[in-house]
Amino acid sequence: MLKIDAERLWASLMDMARVGATARGGSRRLALSEEDRHGRELFEGWCRDAGLGLRRDAVGNLFARRAGEDDGLDPVVMGSHLDTQPEGGRFDGVYGVLAGLEVLRSLNDRGICTRRPLEVAVWTNEEGARFTPAMLGSAAFTGAMALDAALNARDAEGISVGEALRALGWQGDLPLGRRLDAYFEAHIEQGPILEDNAVDVGVVTGGQAIRWLDVRVGGQAAHAGTTPMPLRHDALFGAAEMIQALEALAQRFAPHGLVTVGQLAIAKSSRNTIAGQVDFTIDLRHHQDEVIGAMEQEARALLEAIAARRGLALEAGLHWLSPATPFDADCVGHVREAVRALGYSHQDIVSGAGHDAIHLARSCPTAMVFIPCVGGLSHNEAEDVIPAHAAQGADVLLNAVLARAGRID
Amino acid sequence: MLKIDAERLWASLMDMARVGATARGGSRRLALSEEDRHGRELFEGWCRDAGLGLRRDAVGNLFARRAGEDDGLDPVVMGSHLDTQPEGGRFDGVYGVLAGLEVLRSLNDRGICTRRPLEVAVWTNEEGARFTPAMLGSAAFTGAMALDAALNARDAEGISVGEALRALGWQGDLPLGRRLDAYFEAHIEQGPILEDNAVDVGVVTGGQAIRWLDVRVGGQAAHAGTTPMPLRHDALFGAAEMIQALEALAQRFAPHGLVTVGQLAIAKSSRNTIAGQVDFTIDLRHHQDEVIGAMEQEARALLEAIAARRGLALEAGLHWLSPATPFDADCVGHVREAVRALGYSHQDIVSGAGHDAIHLARSCPTAMVFIPCVGGLSHNEAEDVIPAHAAQGADVLLNAVLARAGRID
Repeated sequence: MLKIDAERLWASLMDMARVGATARGGSRRLALSEEDRHGRELFEGWCRDAGLGLRRDAVGNLFARRAGEDDGLDPVVMGSHLDTQPEGGRFDGVYGVLAGLEVLRSLNDRGICTRRPLEVAVWTNEEGARFTPAMLGSAAFTGAMALDAALNARDAEGISVGEALRALGWQGDLPLGRRLDAYFEAHIEQGPILEDNAVDVGVVTGGQAIRWLDVRVGGQAAHAGTTPMPLRHDALFGAAEMIQALEALAQRFAPHGLVTVGQLAIAKSSRNTIAGQVDFTIDLRHHQDEVIGAMEQEARALLEAIAARRGLALEAGLHWLSPATPFDADCVGHVREAVRALGYSHQDIVSGAGHDAIHLARSCPTAMVFIPCVGGLSHNEAEDVIPAHAAQGADVLLNAVLARAGRID
Repeated sequence: MLKIDAERLWASLMDMARVGATARGGSRRLALSEEDRHGRELFEGWCRDAGLGLRRDAVGNLFARRAGEDDGLDPVVMGSHLDTQPEGGRFDGVYGVLAGLEVLRSLNDRGICTRRPLEVAVWTNEEGARFTPAMLGSAAFTGAMALDAALNARDAEGISVGEALRALGWQGDLPLGRRLDAYFEAHIEQGPILEDNAVDVGVVTGGQAIRWLDVRVGGQAAHAGTTPMPLRHDALFGAAEMIQALEALAQRFAPHGLVTVGQLAIAKSSRNTIAGQVDFTIDLRHHQDEVIGAMEQEARALLEAIAARRGLALEAGLHWLSPATPFDADCVGHVREAVRALGYSHQDIVSGAGHDAIHLARSCPTAMVFIPCVGGLSHNEAEDVIPAHAAQGADVLLNAVLARAGRID
């Protein structure tokens, strides 16, 4: 089986990490910032050295292209993003872009042609740290977000994506929504599962369904010193019981059901005032739409039962939902065959985080390759990867893409 | 039994309520503000009409005096405060001051002398809404707070109590800490107990002990979508279990043990991030020091057990404590005898809120008389009192004070 050049890949990762390097070992390249420009220029230089063509679309998504034997066919695209969180790590996104570049460099080394053209995509503003929403570039590319809306997204200082793109000269003429034959994204897992299971490569079968609920519990604010316990309508005691019940709900949907209460606020809170109103969020996840529907129903029923028993008011609204995103069976099959042929330990895994691939999966056959990250840590300057895993993931990407694009020796 | 003039008392309460009246039926007379000045001027006019002498001390506490037969004896003092919350009610504090005035007016009406002099005190800045701490005037009077510290307390705009007092010309020469024979304070209950029990008058036996704890629960922030439930260290799930256990703790110390969690915050909270750190407060109350000690020990033990089982870090610090304040048996006895002789329904009750009387009780024999407030509501523009209760409480005050001061016909 073909393998990429592990040392060259690692060297490129380390070179890119120096662009916007932070004091504690991470990288800071906010989307469309000076640092993002420097990062892309470094990447573009490598692409030119590799003989790749470079084009952009209207939201600044960048595509580095290696011609195919039958160059009129739709391309097989690899990629991810080079922008980072404000205190981001060295691998989130960067790995997928540079693994894609390394695949093309390795094909160059061996003089291997493919029937279909190959591209490496650098999607704009994946992190959502400077401009919301996250994954803006791939959303605009696939039509999940209108171009106007994408260009009008503004950062905290009021600068729009469109203004920032014009200042950088990054708006190109490659059409949004053009047909891709397939999309493969390599990425760090951003969770602890692969490391915990001592597995080298994750074969990603799709993205989770997500449902976000907003809960408001209404009680009666009153004086902590003068109100007997039986006369209280304490919204926080009610919320605490609800949160306990939500934790138990997750256990009933183990192992794939996830429940998180990430935000909670007591209105007009004071140390010696009984909580009159509590707002909290619920994040439900499962990779099957029908199961997450059942989770939401059970969650609503338990919240209502607790509120009714305690004489509390309850509002529970659906804030947002994202359906499950199963990846393409053929593309996932190519990844699985590659990892098996290479003999790397592997497991199927569902993507828990959002990725550009989630958008792409709704417009072309898509798959992802996960590699472990140390301690499951991501969005953190201490984000780290074992070099052998970086190489293994790229080996899998190389062979899966070759299978899809058609190798011509 | 002597009774006060119920209509005159109510008319004075309604006249005072018009000073700083708010749109929704409450009053706004922040301490040492123009409205507070107008309120005191109204009161002072009534006092002059009643032939009372007026003097102030160094923190602006105002004393209206009716001479005793033996005027060199220490005075029996009634009182409370005229300042209000920003959106305060018409009775909190005001009732105790005007009930005291009504006692003196009623004695005048009947030409009744007392052996000891009688005074009505108006304590400065009881609410703590403009200057902290609350009960500043009575704290300075009793030595619980140094005079310099009281005068240097500053409002949100940087104006000190001393500056505000000088601008008002309210600093007098009556010595702080002079000896009082006894202190009686009538007040609305600010809780629902008397109303719930359909009782007219509360015989207050003392103030609760209070202990405030600050709890920090440390877990591990992580991605809500990528972290399996068994690998989480969710600080909020831990806190929710702790809060549930604290609610159960209150039941074990029923009916006098009170437990409130009034504030809770998730550090760096985000809808899709597992809570890495949760801070919350605990307010424990009981009228017996030894019992509140046991409550604190049990609370600490259950927090530690839950944290240990879940692998969470725990810090629980004592933020502040106030010991129980039993009132003087003789003074409480005068109140109880008065209410019995008057034939009003009554019950013993512990003061759950802070009052000037709590400070006074540490320097002279003290008692309080509570009357019900509608719905237990206080610190609210809708605060209300049934006129018959206002009269009954003042009747009790009159007869208790007469018993203490010595009636001479």
